[in-house]
Formats: sequence, structure tokens, C-alpha cells
Amino acid sequence: MMTATSLNSDLWPEGRSAALVVSFDFDGPTPHLWRSRNEPPRNIAELEQRRYGPRRGIYNVLELLADLEIRSTFFVPGWIASEYPGALNEIVQGGHELALHGWCHESPADISAGQLRETLLRASDKLAEFSGAAPRGYRSPSFQMTGESLEVLMELGLRYDSSLMGDDRPYRINDLIEVPVDWSTSDAIYHRYTAGTISPPAGVRETAAAWSDEITHSVHHGTLCTLTMHPWLSGRPARIEALREILQRARDNSELWIGTVADLADHVASRPDGAEAARTSTTHVSLETMEWPDAH
Amino acid sequence: MMTATSLNSDLWPEGRSAALVVSFDFDGPTPHLWRSRNEPPRNIAELEQRRYGPRRGIYNVLELLADLEIRSTFFVPGWIASEYPGALNEIVQGGHELALHGWCHESPADISAGQLRETLLRASDKLAEFSGAAPRGYRSPSFQMTGESLEVLMELGLRYDSSLMGDDRPYRINDLIEVPVDWSTSDAIYHRYTAGTISPPAGVRETAAAWSDEITHSVHHGTLCTLTMHPWLSGRPARIEALREILQRARDNSELWIGTVADLADHVASRPDGAEAARTSTTHVSLETMEWPDAH
Amino acid sequence: MMTATSLNSDLWPEGRSAALVVSFDFDGPTPHLWRSRNEPPRNIAELEQRRYGPRRGIYNVLELLADLEIRSTFFVPGWIASEYPGALNEIVQGGHELALHGWCHESPADISAGQLRETLLRASDKLAEFSGAAPRGYRSPSFQMTGESLEVLMELGLRYDSSLMGDDRPYRINDLIEVPVDWSTSDAIYHRYTAGTISPPAGVRETAAAWSDEITHSVHHGTLCTLTMHPWLSGRPARIEALREILQRARDNSELWIGTVADLADHVASRPDGAEAARTSTTHVSLETMEWPDAH
Amino acid sequence: MMTATSLNSDLWPEGRSAALVVSFDFDGPTPHLWRSRNEPPRNIAELEQRRYGPRRGIYNVLELLADLEIRSTFFVPGWIASEYPGALNEIVQGGHELALHGWCHESPADISAGQLRETLLRASDKLAEFSGAAPRGYRSPSFQMTGESLEVLMELGLRYDSSLMGDDRPYRINDLIEVPVDWSTSDAIYHRYTAGTISPPAGVRETAAAWSDEITHSVHHGTLCTLTMHPWLSGRPARIEALREILQRARDNSELWIGTVADLADHVASRPDGAEAARTSTTHVSLETMEWPDAH
Repeated sequence: MMTATSLNSDLWPEGRSAALVVSFDFDGPTPHLWRSRNEPPRNIAELEQRRYGPRRGIYNVLELLADLEIRSTFFVPGWIASEYPGALNEIVQGGHELALHGWCHESPADISAGQLRETLLRASDKLAEFSGAAPRGYRSPSFQMTGESLEVLMELGLRYDSSLMGDDRPYRINDLIEVPVDWSTSDAIYHRYTAGTISPPAGVRETAAAWSDEITHSVHHGTLCTLTMHPWLSGRPARIEALREILQRARDNSELWIGTVADLADHVASRPDGAEAARTSTTHVSLETMEWPDAH
Repeated sequence: MMTATSLNSDLWPEGRSAALVVSFDFDGPTPHLWRSRNEPPRNIAELEQRRYGPRRGIYNVLELLADLEIRSTFFVPGWIASEYPGALNEIVQGGHELALHGWCHESPADISAGQLRETLLRASDKLAEFSGAAPRGYRSPSFQMTGESLEVLMELGLRYDSSLMGDDRPYRINDLIEVPVDWSTSDAIYHRYTAGTISPPAGVRETAAAWSDEITHSVHHGTLCTLTMHPWLSGRPARIEALREILQRARDNSELWIGTVADLADHVASRPDGAEAARTSTTHVSLETMEWPDAH
Repeated sequence: MMTATSLNSDLWPEGRSAALVVSFDFDGPTPHLWRSRNEPPRNIAELEQRRYGPRRGIYNVLELLADLEIRSTFFVPGWIASEYPGALNEIVQGGHELALHGWCHESPADISAGQLRETLLRASDKLAEFSGAAPRGYRSPSFQMTGESLEVLMELGLRYDSSLMGDDRPYRINDLIEVPVDWSTSDAIYHRYTAGTISPPAGVRETAAAWSDEITHSVHHGTLCTLTMHPWLSGRPARIEALREILQRARDNSELWIGTVADLADHVASRPDGAEAARTSTTHVSLETMEWPDAH
Repeated sequence: MMTATSLNSDLWPEGRSAALVVSFDFDGPTPHLWRSRNEPPRNIAELEQRRYGPRRGIYNVLELLADLEIRSTFFVPGWIASEYPGALNEIVQGGHELALHGWCHESPADISAGQLRETLLRASDKLAEFSGAAPRGYRSPSFQMTGESLEVLMELGLRYDSSLMGDDRPYRINDLIEVPVDWSTSDAIYHRYTAGTISPPAGVRETAAAWSDEITHSVHHGTLCTLTMHPWLSGRPARIEALREILQRARDNSELWIGTVADLADHVASRPDGAEAARTSTTHVSLETMEWPDAH
């Protein structure tokens, strides 16, 4: 089995063999607010269920990260920053990165490019009130994306996007660094249960086993593992403790680099790229290839 | 990791570190009757499947609780009390609490405030025939809720509601104590299989592992774990025995308080609250914040 | 924990403590034919997938039962008997019971009482060609049932029905013995995957663990466990071998009676009943209580 | 338990007791392109997610097969061959078989016989550019099939189809050899998660256990196990390593033949058939019996 080191010794920061990004989409009730914007339900159960995030889960998450001395990236809708300034201050004080996640969790495939630009500018200003600097990256709500949205991200001068799944290592789309995600290491699909959901949430042992396997084999293959989590889900006691075990093991693995999305994107940006040599250097795909092809 | 004790030594009754509430929604066929009220199906299979609860499951449940000397809260629709008086008498004789669950499992988001008031008053009178006193709390069918419904509960002078998921410790909504629940410790989403359901029921080993983990980490975090079960589901032999193992372990843990929802709510009501210090005392949220916010 | 023996020493045949019924719905493609009767699909994939049952699965099942010397009940639609006479002969030669399952898997809630009577008479004649005697019991397709259908079964002079879930021991509905089933011990919900199904099939280890737990605790509670399986699903190699392990353990348990549904129903019919003493004798419910109640 | 050897010593190649086929549907984004052909979505997330296959997954797969010296069959839509010639060349250089999978993943039940013929001829020419010879077999997208489509396959002179589930050993449909598949050993139903999917992907340990059981019992029963996988799913690091363990064990089992679908089909074609002796020789079913029967 080839490792990143044998392929290319500077693929990951600090000469490590593989990378782990621990990221949180701190969205609280905004996905529910956005989806129900045209007809708010009388039922407030899910709204309150999601408030567990800013009320309790975020503090459990921050405590865990502090205990393990891991720096994380928090993708935060502007509205959340506006409503829960106390939580935002604690995130910044913990040394974590703040990045864009819309104003109220707007899905880029459901709004125009103009609306996307407007909500991101507004959210950028709001997040900068806490971090003192403009956010440098974006994660799209629900991992949706359009070619036009990628253009907006470039126009806004962002360094990175972290929403797509086309590789297991960061890649370039024109001037943007794509730090890929994966549904398999996203907590929502395992742990989100709201009224009407069909399958029960996975037990923490199953998720812990699955994610540990992902990290282990990521190290063997010299790839990136991006954990995407939500304080209202992964911030609950049993899940926080399962996550503690996973992250403790990861932190003790000296082959693995762990850090923020921005730090990883900066490292990648400093390396040469080569679309022709996808297996030995950073893949470069052009924005045009993102569009719908003619396949018939 | 902070424990409830280090935070606030009187958070839980008897100076314990955490709390476990073992509660049953004894609803039998009423959810099916309510959902199908406008067009009763010809097919009586689910009706009969749910009758396992009042016919067999409730007695398995009561026997288990008696064996383990655990007092539980039974949320019982008035119609069930009316149809199965023998079971109700055994619940009361076992020293358990009776509390409100509608007349025929009416979801509060599907009826008016006036209808909610009417069905709860009627059910309250019916339950009082067995317990000798008016019920002091309410759990909404399917964990649904509206702001208006919370007002009705307050008007009726109830001490507590146990339907929301906004915290992992009891909290105050104006004068009402909210004793939160959690889908993850609710049997229906794991074990309910009726014709047309998509996923098979979870095995008892999986649920036992998941719930044991929830209780264990609840103790570590100083939080509340509320088990919500149904006699027609959890009253079946294999599940009763899995539950026996879970509850035996819980009962042997001296850090854990186990009791009825009413007893816990009374304890919380006797403590000072402080919305500004959510992590060290009882959180107080106002009824207005329950409503749909303007997020755009 | 009470056992059946302490309650009532003749609850089960041969003075055993509990009972296991191993039953097969040998329906092959008929559920698909019935559901698609109004617009047969161009796609024949599911049709062929289900033919695995009569082509291969049934022989694996019969071999297993012969190896373990277990007698089983096969519920067979008349059309299957007509199309696969070789398989029917082998079932009868194996000493197993043939019982009714419609002509082409007609769901009783979807047809009139007259149609149900007609299809069952036709199927009864067809099955009698193989077994030499009229079938004595019925299992409804998909465990559906109506009050009117139960009347038809009684008019046809059947001894038993095996389609409902209202108890974990056989019970009486007027003159009919109901030998209850349970979704949790039905293979279809775990193992049926056809195009468009949402969840993948359960692994055989999970099902084997779940069913073994059901049988174990059935013995402890003195109840009935009814396995409901399909040759096109459970007849595949990995599942047959998992079933072999389950049944070997069951057969080695001297507290457990194993036999056909007809033999169990005859035993129950020979015992006194008593609706008032449901926990110590056979429950008797009247046909009228099967109907939709007025719950409001 | 009978084994293939005791039944018929030349059932499998090289006198082995059972057979394993390791096959890949290398379809990348084509299923998504085909399904969305009438209204391409703005959202490009799934398109990019599926590009993981040709960009990364295929190379992980090929490396694994080379490490284990296993020859595999790749079913490749013509459009994929056209877009990713580099990957196609590596497949051929690895000694693997190329076979038909439509031009752009057209489901045979959704197009006419004429369209099927046209797309397969076009794809056949494209694949021959790489392999130097016309493909000899077909696997239908999504395992769909119609009687008319089987006729087209015969008209095109194909040796085999590998899309149906009516047996656990190859069988004949007129002059075509059917090498059966099974949903239970198909990665998509366990591991495919795209936006909107209901259940999370299975963990690799669960799938590895389930597939290992399938292979083990296949050997005991003397049957065929066909693994159907996709590079964009099974090509990810954790799944590749789980697959490595499964295949290493299989390769070390001297009773098991492992090879391409074409090699297996050729072996079967060289044996006598006998519809009357399905359990001891190759089953022969006629094309007419594939059609929708009159079951009422």
C-alpha cells in the first residue's frame, strides 16, 4: 500500500502522512428555519430540539476540544452569531476558526448567485465582529453546490470551500482550494432524528467504530479525513464521550496532522499542482468541468 | 469532565450526581385511532397489534418495576383509562404516577388550544378516579408542542411538561418545569414496526447497548436521562428482559437518582433559577422565546 | 419471573414451558403478482428474484428441516401449488402441514368477503390434492385482517388463524384459535430487499442474535415464538446456515415445544378458556371487539 | 449438507467446490446523469461525489486487485470509457475483463428494445477500442430486465448476462448464460449515501461480516457468490481495506474458484444442461417463462 509519504513528502503539513480535520457546523435551529421559511409550522418541537446546540452542546464540544488541545473550524450562520454572541466569543477564545455557513443556512442551489453573495457578505461582517478578521472559507449547507456558487466564492476572495466529495485529498478548482468532506464522516446522517425521520439514530458504538476505521485507513492511504459534526447532535453526553475516545486515539497517532481547514488550505495553496499527476500531487480541476456534461 | 456535583450540589434529589426517569406512554391503540379518525381502515391488524400493550405488555412492565422497586410515571390517555380500568388500578397500586397524555392521543399541533384544554380536563377527571388526585404533568403525543399549548398547560395549573428536548437537565418555561426527553432514549423509534414501516426493529442488544451508554455518560456529565417506553413495544418478553438488565445496573449505581417525573419536577421547582448561568443552575427560558423567530 | 409452568401446567403441549412454531409463507412471486395486477411492470427483475424460492430456496429449507427433524407449517397460495407441484409433493412427503395463504396472495383488506371465500375455497381444493385433506388454518398475506375476514374463516370451518399480534400466546376469537405472529420474528422485514427498498438487508448475524434472544426470553416467559419465513429469502445459503444454528439450539432446549400450527391450535382448543383470567389461561376475545371502536 | 462436488464434480471450473466473482460497475456519474436527463439539477454535489470513482476509487481498486492477483470483470458505460481513457487502459493492462453496462447507464425497462440495441452497439465499439475485442457480456443498470431485453442480448450474440437473481448458480435462458447476482452482495445498497438518502451507510465491519458469511456459506453449499461493487463507493480507503481482508481470505480458500464472469460463463456453456434436474446440473429456463404470468 502506498502512503502519502512515499508519494510526495510534503502533501500534508509538518511532513505527516495523513490529515484529520475536526469541523463543526454550528447551525442550531437555522436549517429548520430555512426549510420552513414559507410556512412556519405550529409545532415548535424541532426548533427546541435544535436549541440544545447553542444552549448546551456547544459548551460540551468546546470543553472536549480544550481538554484534547485540538483546534477546530466552526462554520457558523450569521444569524447564530447574532443570537448567541456568548457562544461565539467562547469559540474564538478557544483558538478555533470561524468560517461561513450562510446567514440562515441558505442552500446555494435554492437561491440566486446574487442572494448567495449578499448573505455571505452579511455573515462575513458578523463573524468578523468576533474573530477580528474576515472568514477565509465556506461550507455549504447540506453539502449542496452549483458552479455559479463556486464563482461567487472566488469573487469574494475566499481561500477555500469545504463542501464537495470528489477526492479524498484537498484539490484545486481554479484558484479555490477544495477541502473535501464525506457523508460517511458526517454526524447528521447517523445521529439526526427529528419527528418523521424513518430510521433511528445509530448507537455511539457503531459510529465510533465506523469513524475510527475511517481515520485508521486514512492514515494507511495517506488521505484526508474530515469530520463534520453539529453541536445539537454530537454535543450530547454519550456522543461527546465517544468522540473523546476517537480523538484521543487520533491525537496520539504521530503520523496524523490535525488542524483547522484554513491551515490545511494554506498548506495546499503553497504546493505545486498538476492535473496530469493526480496520484502524486494536488489535483487541479477547472471550474468548467463542474458543470452538467452532455452524456448522450 | 465536570460533574453536576462539582457544579451545584443540589441539582438532583438526594444529592445524587445525575438522574434517570423511567417513563411509559401507555397509549395502546390510541395513536392509531387518532391518526385514522377521519377514515378508519378496514384493516384491523395494527389495532390488534397495539392491544398487546393493555392485554399483556403492561403486566410485564409492572412486574419488572415491582421486582426492581422502581417507581415510574405512566402517561395515559383518558380513553385507555376508561377501557382498561384493571390495568389502571394495578398501576396505582404499584405506587406509580399517572399523568396526562390527551384523551385519545391528540397531537397538540393538530388541535386548537380550546380542544386541548377540553381533552385534558376530561382526561384529568378520568385519571383522578384511579389515583385520587389530579395529574400534575403532561407529555404530548409524539413529542409535539406549540407555544399556545404550553400556555394551556400553565392555565391548567400543571407543575410540569415532559415533551421537549432543549436541554439535558430540567429547565423552566415561565412557571412550568420542563423535564426533557430525547428521541435516542425513546423505544418507539427503535422498536415500532407496523405494516408499511421501512426499517426493521432494532435488536434488543443494540438498544440495550445504546441506552446503557446514554445512562453511563449521563452520570459522567451530571445530566438527566429520560427513558420513554410503550407497553405494547417494550412489554414484549425479549425487550422486558433487556430492560431488566439496563435498570438493574442503573439501580446499583449509587450516583444516580431514579424516580417519577413529578418528584423530579418538585425538586427542581424548589431550587433557584438563573437564565444567565445556564451551566451552573436551572436554565430559565421565557415562553416568548418558544415562538418562531424572524431569522432573515 | 413467572413461567408458564407455574401459571398453568398444561398451557403448552407435552407439559413444556414454551412453544416455538417454525412456519414458512411459500409465496414465491405471488405478492409481486398481486400488487402489480392492475399494471404489470415491464421490469421482470423482482419476478425472477422471487422465483429463487420455488427454484432453489424451498429445497434448502426442506433439507434443513429434515436434518433437524422439525415439522413445519407451509402457508401456500393456490397458484404456487398449481405451478410448482414437485415442491408441494416434497413438502407433504417431509411430514409438514399445508395451510391457506390465498390463491395469489390476496390481501383480505383489499378484497370483499365474497372474494376471500372464493379464493380460499379454490386454494383449499388445490392444497388438498397434495395433502389429501382440507387445510385447517389460514395466514393472511402481509398479516392484514378485517373483522369480516375472520367471519369468513369461521364460516369455512377453519380451526385457526395465524396472522394477528394481540398476544404472545394463542388466544380465542369466538370459535377460532388465533396463533399469533410477530413482525420481530418475521424474515421479510429484515431480509427482503427488492429494487427501490430503502434499507439494506440485515446481516445474518444480527438476525440470528435477535431471533435467538426472542426464543430464549420466550422460554423464560412461557410464551409462544412464531418464526415466519419465506423460501426466497431465508432459503439462501448464508441464511439457511444461520437458521440451522438457531433451530439446533432451540431443538436442544427440552423446555421448548416445537411443532406445527395445527398441532398447537388443537392443543389450545382442548383447554378451558377464560377471558377474565388472561394471565393464567387462554384469553378469549369476542369477534365484536375486533372492530373499530368509538374513542372520542 | 450437500456440496457441489458431491452433486456434480464439474459444476465449477478447475473442479472447485464453489465460485466467487469479483465484479465492478464502473459507472461514475452516469446513473445520476441518466436519472436526471430530463431536468439536470442546479446542484452539482452528487455529480462531484460520484467523480471520486474515476478520479481516485478506480486506482485504489486496481491496486488491490493487482496486490491479490485477482482478475475481475468491469462493467463500463460507453460514456465513461470515452471520458476516462486512462482508467480504461489501466483496467485492460491489469488483465481484467471489460463488459457492457449501457452507454450512459440506460435502464432496459425505461427504453425500447431498439434503443437498447443501439446504445449497446455503440458501447461495444467503444470498449473494443481498449480491449481489442467485442465485450461478451452485459450487466443491466440497477439490475433491471425485461424479456425483450434478453432477446436483444441474444441477437447481439452475447455469451452471458449478469443481472438476475433467480438462482445461486449460473443458469441458461435459451442460449444465454445467466450469471446471477444478489442484492446482499452488492455494495450500493449498503454504502451509497447521497443527499436525500434515508439510511446512513453501513459501517465497513458490518458489510465485511455479512459478505464473509455469504462467501463462507457459498462454499458450504457449492454455490456462486457474485460481488457487485462500484469504485466511487468501495474504492474509498476504509472500504478498500475491508475488501482486502475479505478477498485475502477468499483467495486462501482452495475450494473456491475466483475469476471473471466471462470465464465462468464459458465453463458453464461447456457443460450439459437439464431443466428437469435443477439440483444436480445447470438449470435451463426458457425465455417465455420470463414473462408476466396469468396468476388469477
